[in-house]
Amino acid sequence: MKLTILGCYAATPRTFSNPTSQVLEMQNQLFLIDCAEGTQVELRRNKIKFSRIKHIFISHLHGDHFYGLIGLISSFRLLNRTQELHIYGPKGLEEIIKIQFKHSDSWVNFPLIFHELTSKEPELIYEDEKLTVSTIPLKHRVYTNGFFFSEKPHERKLNPVACRQHGVEICDYQNLKNGKDYTKEDGERVANSLLTFDPAPPKSYAYCSDTVFDTSLPEKIKGATVLYHEATFLEQHAHLGQPTKHSTAAQAAQVAKSAGVGTLILGHFSTRYDSITRFKQEAEVIFPAVELADDGKVFVFD
Amino acid sequence: MKLTILGCYAATPRTFSNPTSQVLEMQNQLFLIDCAEGTQVELRRNKIKFSRIKHIFISHLHGDHFYGLIGLISSFRLLNRTQELHIYGPKGLEEIIKIQFKHSDSWVNFPLIFHELTSKEPELIYEDEKLTVSTIPLKHRVYTNGFFFSEKPHERKLNPVACRQHGVEICDYQNLKNGKDYTKEDGERVANSLLTFDPAPPKSYAYCSDTVFDTSLPEKIKGATVLYHEATFLEQHAHLGQPTKHSTAAQAAQVAKSAGVGTLILGHFSTRYDSITRFKQEAEVIFPAVELADDGKVFVFD
Repeated sequence: MKLTILGCYAATPRTFSNPTSQVLEMQNQLFLIDCAEGTQVELRRNKIKFSRIKHIFISHLHGDHFYGLIGLISSFRLLNRTQELHIYGPKGLEEIIKIQFKHSDSWVNFPLIFHELTSKEPELIYEDEKLTVSTIPLKHRVYTNGFFFSEKPHERKLNPVACRQHGVEICDYQNLKNGKDYTKEDGERVANSLLTFDPAPPKSYAYCSDTVFDTSLPEKIKGATVLYHEATFLEQHAHLGQPTKHSTAAQAAQVAKSAGVGTLILGHFSTRYDSITRFKQEAEVIFPAVELADDGKVFVFD
Repeated sequence: MKLTILGCYAATPRTFSNPTSQVLEMQNQLFLIDCAEGTQVELRRNKIKFSRIKHIFISHLHGDHFYGLIGLISSFRLLNRTQELHIYGPKGLEEIIKIQFKHSDSWVNFPLIFHELTSKEPELIYEDEKLTVSTIPLKHRVYTNGFFFSEKPHERKLNPVACRQHGVEICDYQNLKNGKDYTKEDGERVANSLLTFDPAPPKSYAYCSDTVFDTSLPEKIKGATVLYHEATFLEQHAHLGQPTKHSTAAQAAQVAKSAGVGTLILGHFSTRYDSITRFKQEAEVIFPAVELADDGKVFVFD
């Protein structure tokens, strides 16, 4: 599982800081999460191939999370994309994109499939053989979802030495990987645990931006391997959290602690601060495993 | 008159090249012409104060000329702008901007005034004491205008020595600047030309992008001090001009020559070429005073 931060600052794009966009690689698939102005250039800068992006998730319709989407779709069109593109985001997004194509007297030459979200309860929005994606309803000034990416339990790993000793044939391998015991020709039963190793536990990634401090959130992201939680403010501006519906670093850490996640990544920093190191300091008091997002930073979780 | 190129490449934004946007300074006013994705960051990079931009001109509704507008307006809002912003562009632009604000449940806190254009004839769209701006209808795949920025004739400059010799009083200065002759108390008439110097000739700037090669264009921009004309292609791709409604460097030079402009600036280069120097070479065969636009380049015409 690999996370590339294309942008992690709040509000307006600046010369040396980008608003929100990131790419999650999970089970060899790429998922683009939010798409602020300039995202397509950041994708190029980080050498992420456009053709590998098949699913884009938009948390909410504030500009610093989606103004780059129309440009990215247009570039896909100009580059003669043919494969499907799926976009998951709040109702209204399709209208915004289509009206711009209408006025430019053009349309895309590939299947562009919108999955508009309206539910206020978590819902499964993507599933394949290896993973699922569900929404995490968040509390912000407009309708907002986080996204929970979750690997399905992995297959058990064969123990080749033990398999040989017990005379397991190739045609039985998949049953073993699926956790079944093995029955020999003479009827003797061999426990699966003697023939296989435990697989790596499935990993999960919870993206939560933007949101006010929400005590109901930990329940929805319990035990996530990694939580990306917005931390717009430091403690000195905690009073701005409620009116703007944003969180502090300490509040993000409180969510991480209550949810029992593995690692907390902080992002969506207000550009009012000269340095982001204090975000880590304020969060670490509450939760120890804190990382700071930054534009161009890559996190690998093995 | 000063022109700052923020971006001058065709189609998609890339790591080291921006689509179209530029800032014209004329008579101490700034005019933003086109506003591709990333324009607000380029404005910052070129240290152009957001507060000095009061008029934005959008040539047409292809993304590489306006996708940065919504973000720029949003940033003006976040930075608590209070002064008016005038936007001149094709019909449809207001709908595109407003629908995005509607879905973000917000609106600007300053007067945002759209001047939507539909005429296929040149029309005066802005005028103040010192200059005018008119449209230049262009021939492209969608409704497109160039813009003709034209200084009004300057006041004549007083000849202080001659004024003293003829006993001209201060209250008569403005009449002299306006070109009137001077009549002494004894009735003697002194020709204006004896008391004033010729002013600098008024300057003008014709922005023509995007357009196919158009033989009716020179008539509309006759004698412009500076012409910015698109040159998407080199001669080797001249056959793409008609189907895409773009021009070659040589065609731009032909327009400059027929119009008798002072200087031709080429821009809107296709990113298929490794170097832009050949655009200059191909244009100079036809018209000698050729400059190449480039991102971040500043032209001063005194």
